[in-house]
Amino acid sequence: MDRVRSCHTWQPEKYRPFLIGAEIFGHVTHEFAQALAAFPKVFVVTEQQVSLCSSLKSFAERSEKVEEAIQQLVADGTISRWRGEYYPVTNDWGQSPIMKMDRGAAGYFGIRGYGVHVNGLVHTAEGLKIWVGKRSLDKPNAPGKLDHIVAGGQPFGLGVYENLVKEAAEEADIPEALVQKAKPAGIVSYRCAREDGLRNDILFVYDLCLPEDFTPRNTDGEVEEFYLWPLEQVIDRIKSGDDFKFNVSLVLIHFLIRQGYITPDDDPDYCALVKGMQRQSS
Amino acid sequence: MDRVRSCHTWQPEKYRPFLIGAEIFGHVTHEFAQALAAFPKVFVVTEQQVSLCSSLKSFAERSEKVEEAIQQLVADGTISRWRGEYYPVTNDWGQSPIMKMDRGAAGYFGIRGYGVHVNGLVHTAEGLKIWVGKRSLDKPNAPGKLDHIVAGGQPFGLGVYENLVKEAAEEADIPEALVQKAKPAGIVSYRCAREDGLRNDILFVYDLCLPEDFTPRNTDGEVEEFYLWPLEQVIDRIKSGDDFKFNVSLVLIHFLIRQGYITPDDDPDYCALVKGMQRQSS
Repeated sequence: MDRVRSCHTWQPEKYRPFLIGAEIFGHVTHEFAQALAAFPKVFVVTEQQVSLCSSLKSFAERSEKVEEAIQQLVADGTISRWRGEYYPVTNDWGQSPIMKMDRGAAGYFGIRGYGVHVNGLVHTAEGLKIWVGKRSLDKPNAPGKLDHIVAGGQPFGLGVYENLVKEAAEEADIPEALVQKAKPAGIVSYRCAREDGLRNDILFVYDLCLPEDFTPRNTDGEVEEFYLWPLEQVIDRIKSGDDFKFNVSLVLIHFLIRQGYITPDDDPDYCALVKGMQRQSS
Repeated sequence: MDRVRSCHTWQPEKYRPFLIGAEIFGHVTHEFAQALAAFPKVFVVTEQQVSLCSSLKSFAERSEKVEEAIQQLVADGTISRWRGEYYPVTNDWGQSPIMKMDRGAAGYFGIRGYGVHVNGLVHTAEGLKIWVGKRSLDKPNAPGKLDHIVAGGQPFGLGVYENLVKEAAEEADIPEALVQKAKPAGIVSYRCAREDGLRNDILFVYDLCLPEDFTPRNTDGEVEEFYLWPLEQVIDRIKSGDDFKFNVSLVLIHFLIRQGYITPDDDPDYCALVKGMQRQSS
């Protein structure tokens, strides 16, 4: 429950809504709202909210003008880094994005982020094992934390499965012939403040059964090391603290619920755990 | 999505809260609230709410006095039937119930109901098949609707697995040696008005893989007939209308999501479907 609770720590009073037209697409801290007031041709900042200027009418105009502002905010250190990867700005998956925004700014605007997380499973004679990655110590975000074999943000313009194939190749050198066996298994979602801003994410969860003779190999420098752990070891590590990245714990608990490793008779928090798989409404 | 939406049709304006102490445990229609006003030693009825009299201090007192009122309401036709089976009154699974109440009155008070639903799965050479029951035509509730091989309300004082064993024996004559293979797979929840009142339920979902040579046999007269259908036929039937009982469709869609038969790339409603697996907050 501690792992689940830490995914749902959003404090609405610390933010004001970020609107495009009449619709809320994110939330910004009061401090960041003041920084946005320096761009009156892009943002209308009031005590209650930040809106995109109504003069920005198209996807292209919105994306371009906001990008210019973000670049200045990166240059002056208000936003910590430019990621060079776009996130769609949208409240609903399957809806046309209203604009796109650099991933490095997503947490500052609190926009919906989408991602894909893969449980890498190996059925062995000794029982079920799970591939665990240790994040590179020089990653700016959650260095050294335990991670999935494959996990990544969902960039603008890629399908979920396409992104899974790309990330599987980069992060673990998994050939597409193996990736094809990955099966979608649902969603976890959450909203909480993290070091990289307000995370308001929907993660598409996949299970991937891998053969015993496959060993992942990182190709993009983002993973320090891979371990193949018995399920019990993964469970112990989730219980004992936050060695797993916060959202990785959530996806692993989702797996444990789906696969019957947690039961309603044995766990008085069963209903709360299931409820905690999804974003809490404010 | 139509099947999912029909599970979340609660209209709060048609109800007033039912409180015990300071906590809301259910909702009653304005009409039923007026009927409860005839029992001033049990219920305090105002325009805004119905509360249990604070003089009823223990589990036993609350249960007994409410039962007396319910029996009169059954006798005068306000409540349609007495079920002779108790539901615990509680807002959280794992919490001690504050009282117990006849199942026949649960929908009138809109208290939390708990149940267990079992997907009866058969892996065959032609692919996955699912056991489907047709509800007896003389069942008062949802006669003739398609149902799970095993599904039932969770009575007071039984564990979920104990109840599953009992229901599996009564409804489908499944021996405990087979039931033991059932694996919990999560929860669906919903709140909606049905013919039997306000349903505010949490269903514990189980998957049970059955051998090909097993055939269910109903022993309590609640099932007209059992069919073993290929998964595709089940999917077609869910899509084509509401032949499946409303909450059975929900549990089957939950299965389709968990097992990767619905994917985020192919279904623009993917996120809405996953969200619809749980009760919508008002």
